[in-house]
Amino acid sequence: MNTAMDARSWTTAARLYNSTVAAWAIGAAWELGALDELAEHGVLDTFEFATRHDLDAASTLGMFRALAAVGVVRRDDTKIVPADAFAEIHQTRSLFHWLVRGSAELFRQMPSVLRNENRAGEFYRRDPAAIAFACKEISTFCYDPWFWSAVDGLGTDFGVVLDLGCGSGERLRQVLHRHPGTRGIGVDIAGEALKVAEKDAATAGLADRVTFVEEDMLSMATRPEFADVELLTCFMAGHDLWPREQCVRTLRRFRDLFPNARRFLIGDATRSVGIPDDELPVFMLGFEVAHDMMGAFMPTVEDWESVFADGGWRLRRKHTIDMVASEVIFELERR
Amino acid sequence: MNTAMDARSWTTAARLYNSTVAAWAIGAAWELGALDELAEHGVLDTFEFATRHDLDAASTLGMFRALAAVGVVRRDDTKIVPADAFAEIHQTRSLFHWLVRGSAELFRQMPSVLRNENRAGEFYRRDPAAIAFACKEISTFCYDPWFWSAVDGLGTDFGVVLDLGCGSGERLRQVLHRHPGTRGIGVDIAGEALKVAEKDAATAGLADRVTFVEEDMLSMATRPEFADVELLTCFMAGHDLWPREQCVRTLRRFRDLFPNARRFLIGDATRSVGIPDDELPVFMLGFEVAHDMMGAFMPTVEDWESVFADGGWRLRRKHTIDMVASEVIFELERR
Repeated sequence: MNTAMDARSWTTAARLYNSTVAAWAIGAAWELGALDELAEHGVLDTFEFATRHDLDAASTLGMFRALAAVGVVRRDDTKIVPADAFAEIHQTRSLFHWLVRGSAELFRQMPSVLRNENRAGEFYRRDPAAIAFACKEISTFCYDPWFWSAVDGLGTDFGVVLDLGCGSGERLRQVLHRHPGTRGIGVDIAGEALKVAEKDAATAGLADRVTFVEEDMLSMATRPEFADVELLTCFMAGHDLWPREQCVRTLRRFRDLFPNARRFLIGDATRSVGIPDDELPVFMLGFEVAHDMMGAFMPTVEDWESVFADGGWRLRRKHTIDMVASEVIFELERR
Repeated sequence: MNTAMDARSWTTAARLYNSTVAAWAIGAAWELGALDELAEHGVLDTFEFATRHDLDAASTLGMFRALAAVGVVRRDDTKIVPADAFAEIHQTRSLFHWLVRGSAELFRQMPSVLRNENRAGEFYRRDPAAIAFACKEISTFCYDPWFWSAVDGLGTDFGVVLDLGCGSGERLRQVLHRHPGTRGIGVDIAGEALKVAEKDAATAGLADRVTFVEEDMLSMATRPEFADVELLTCFMAGHDLWPREQCVRTLRRFRDLFPNARRFLIGDATRSVGIPDDELPVFMLGFEVAHDMMGAFMPTVEDWESVFADGGWRLRRKHTIDMVASEVIFELERR
């Protein structure tokens, strides 16, 4: 190392560094309600905010300093107001949360996760509750508008909808609210999420219209109630069907498991193609590198389009969303 | 949330986001030897590098994509060459490592760490081994040149040097190498670090010239060998003496514990004063917010200067380093 260094000339390092600290502050400021309060009132006082929420005053000031360092807020002593980047960061906060709260431990362990000798068993850790929290909001702007447009455009009624990888059941609840004559079935491998789903469904008065099944969608056995399913949905979980052979096999299997499913909506992020490294939009890089590290196959749109026919489905329509991670919704019909 | 959003216009969010992913990649690329290899050879091939180090190829490419996204390297398919920011990031890699490998869990838990109800017991977690790894390199450019200048300028020989908060004993070993007639004592509260220190001292052939004592410097009892100590050093640990009253008391106590210590070198980061949020250099923000979250007092230079006389020491000279976290070395003499 050269000792003749001038720290003040390290401007790129400072920018990257402070951005990283700020990313954590964005996730925290969302969870603690500071972003919503700034969006609503246009101003807050650090110490009043800390007192009201019973937060440590010095650390709360630290959180706002980090946001101010990258232009999300402007700080005048303890007074905080939104700055130029506020609107943008407020809109994308869930994407940051996914990275720095939900996936931080995966990224932290990058040096050991990359070593082949370590890539067996449970070789990485993330925070599923934090990821569910972030994904609930991510879904509202990455999928929902296109999802409803796809559902409304089905041009057919459906008695039973089954959601593959339903998580805490938010999407299913929304479908049932919009379609009062419909019943729902949620399938997920995560028992913890299903407990939340059942509780939330009961709270929403939907207990008699929805059931939840703890199953791996790749291996689940048939059930009598599957015969009634007319619409299949699978959001933010479709890449788990891959790689290719397993995906084709499973798509065929869905045909057999759900003999009356006329439509199948698959909404998911896909691997980007041809975007230069220095033009990657928010989220895409984190999302793709995370899946690389986890050893999870992430198909491109073209990969997807190559499996539907072999899997026994016809692509009826493709909704290209391309919000932050090349999201797409495929609208399939039984061949 | 507004659904009429245009992801491609989220340029600030993309920059912050990709910077955060890149920060993790910097820490990993250092540990895995990629930064050194690029610095030495000016080029590497991703897959050849991955094969040679037995790394997962896709994840390794992901790591380099992250570095390319922020201009640290340039990527042409799998070929990687240093880009504009490389030299700067190579020099500051240990500061990133401290943040994203050593302190990530503290920052990840910002929302819960800020809540007063949680701030008791062991309310945060960091990775001490990772922090020690980073600090060893941080010390080489933040303190070493000024440390040796201070030691050389003492204008006096010293038979025994005692290092407070010695960690793995690196500094002590260097002093003994440079001063063959000197013996050393290392004091640290971390037994694990002292085991490493003893092993490393033995490897360096210094076993008969140095002893290590597992003690809390705030409460340690006197020992016969303390009477021989002529030079006291305390690096990157002095802020643990604070707050003020405890610091004054402990400085006085050091006078009693080490009755023949003529000189005392305290080198530490201090809290910055008057630097606007958007001009914070690399490291400072992360360092200060981390200490705020941990509830650790971080004195300013002025705070320090206010305790020496009351503590029984005279400030002989101040070495202002100001590299990344307002580092300073105070050279004290017994009053």
